[in-house]
Amino acid sequence: MSKYWSQVAKRLEPYVPGEQPRDRKYVKLNTNESPYPPSPKVLAAIKEVACERLSLYPDPTCLSLRQCIAEYHGLALEQVFVGNGSDEVLAFCFQAFFDPGNPILFPDITYSFYPVYANLYNIDYQLVELEADFSLVGEKFATTNGGVIFPNPNAPTGRYIPLDAVREIVEKNSNQVVIVDEAYIDFGGQSAVELIAYYPNLLVVQTLSKSRSLAGLRVGFAMGHEDLIAGLDRVKNSINSYTLDQVAIAGAVEAFKDEAYFNETRHKVIVTREKTANRLTALGFNVIPSQANFLFISHPVVTAGVLYQKLREQGILVRYFNKNKINNFLRVSIGSEEEMDSLIMALHNILK
Amino acid sequence: MSKYWSQVAKRLEPYVPGEQPRDRKYVKLNTNESPYPPSPKVLAAIKEVACERLSLYPDPTCLSLRQCIAEYHGLALEQVFVGNGSDEVLAFCFQAFFDPGNPILFPDITYSFYPVYANLYNIDYQLVELEADFSLVGEKFATTNGGVIFPNPNAPTGRYIPLDAVREIVEKNSNQVVIVDEAYIDFGGQSAVELIAYYPNLLVVQTLSKSRSLAGLRVGFAMGHEDLIAGLDRVKNSINSYTLDQVAIAGAVEAFKDEAYFNETRHKVIVTREKTANRLTALGFNVIPSQANFLFISHPVVTAGVLYQKLREQGILVRYFNKNKINNFLRVSIGSEEEMDSLIMALHNILK
Repeated sequence: MSKYWSQVAKRLEPYVPGEQPRDRKYVKLNTNESPYPPSPKVLAAIKEVACERLSLYPDPTCLSLRQCIAEYHGLALEQVFVGNGSDEVLAFCFQAFFDPGNPILFPDITYSFYPVYANLYNIDYQLVELEADFSLVGEKFATTNGGVIFPNPNAPTGRYIPLDAVREIVEKNSNQVVIVDEAYIDFGGQSAVELIAYYPNLLVVQTLSKSRSLAGLRVGFAMGHEDLIAGLDRVKNSINSYTLDQVAIAGAVEAFKDEAYFNETRHKVIVTREKTANRLTALGFNVIPSQANFLFISHPVVTAGVLYQKLREQGILVRYFNKNKINNFLRVSIGSEEEMDSLIMALHNILK
Repeated sequence: MSKYWSQVAKRLEPYVPGEQPRDRKYVKLNTNESPYPPSPKVLAAIKEVACERLSLYPDPTCLSLRQCIAEYHGLALEQVFVGNGSDEVLAFCFQAFFDPGNPILFPDITYSFYPVYANLYNIDYQLVELEADFSLVGEKFATTNGGVIFPNPNAPTGRYIPLDAVREIVEKNSNQVVIVDEAYIDFGGQSAVELIAYYPNLLVVQTLSKSRSLAGLRVGFAMGHEDLIAGLDRVKNSINSYTLDQVAIAGAVEAFKDEAYFNETRHKVIVTREKTANRLTALGFNVIPSQANFLFISHPVVTAGVLYQKLREQGILVRYFNKNKINNFLRVSIGSEEEMDSLIMALHNILK
């Protein structure tokens, strides 16, 4: 602690991202990246934007990208906000919609950035307990609260709740904002975007980092009633007029235009996920049903901590959260078919 | 105002950036961009990074870029923080170092984002009055305060204070953080970076948007004692683990490596500035002495508001701040020689 830090800086407990190691080459199944490269059209667009115009500021309204997203999702331009990854968008959401002294709700097992944001902005929160199988019961979000946020599918479990259950949560919280964090929705879930027309309190957040193979480009977005988008704009324009650089805007636009590539690669991930789930079950693992690009697994004999360590020694990185209730689980990103073969073979050797 | 907005969102008065018009082609002298393209090496590096690796997250510590900056400025790696433009870095600074109830100081005429940040984080502030010629008197910052921030050269005036004056301010405020915002330092001023070794309360902020022709890439950075950098890291890692995308990191690294190009282009801007200042003086303008890549000017006969409008009609954009004390001034970015010829000719016609 430095005497120069603010009270806020002193109380922070920052988020720790999955490691990006450099000591050796790993089979990297720890940060839910796509095993497939970005669309060739995205890469071509980035090369094209690497020109003299980079000396000029980007469009602060990111008009071209917001138009693309609006069109893709059947929304108006004013219903779309874009930012530097969905993490930044979520941070802005906490600041724009939640107040100190009015506790918000999120699941007790969920994306571990939520309590970090809450702490940063001094927002109180109550944890909503998941069932033993990690399923989320919508009724538990019907208590008095200052706002609701949950991922669908949930992280790090991969469990998904259907649109009707989402609708019920949004309806029962009509006086406060409900944020559905859909970072993983493109891997088999149904998006809540279609509810936006009916519920002015619903905000849906998505990202290009997973299903569009662009974790390295940092683009996320939020969709909702134009009043909510205006709130996000106010926060963003009080911090940084230009959160997306010219390159990110140009690449992201092409990612939306190349729908064929998007569908092809996300379906490959879904197929590999189902195959991997079956193989893990055959190895004796408890595999939580997932609609995401990862699996949450535990083994009845060998503990997750030991598996994590032994996989690492064999050059395979997965994510292990040493936290209450999930400290015997591993989160395994869905890689290529070859990467999953390596994982299964390594687990087979460890378990035999 | 939406009922869904937080108290913070309701009280915000967002910053308004200089316009990036699309209705026609302008001689764009309104946002202090460089008239020269980025280094060809930067553009080559961006093209190279547009590859399959973009599906992976960037290095959250931005090691390669921080190493480059540390080496360039003779600092340790732990003394360098990077972010999405110096605006984001400054926002993080307000959150990391300033507290509500302990008023900070900044000049009454200065970068108009400072009061926006203060408002966002509920930081009280006192304005330190500049002299009639917009010069800044260091002694006025020697009162009790919760922190100090000022640009050097100042914006939008372009006035610069020498290193000894900066040192005095830093020394007289040893119990709180002094932020020197050096967005324009490469156009003739002496950076306060060399003071970092002696003053643990000094933070120096710079950007690649101006002197390195990379406004479109969004890269800024802060330098100071490692405790200050750790404070910024805590804030950043509570908002967004990856504020710089892979492309911005790769491009920024090359911008620092190509020092010859950097020196060539910034010196061209300085030469054009001096020449333009002389021509404007000959046209009867009061030209505030500038060490930045812009000039702050007023005319004894034609008001700034009228000049702004007439220049705009002739396809030349400059910045006009309709604010107390400066509402008869224009801020004119230094463009290419040809662009400044157009400006002078247009002014000549307007004034005759």
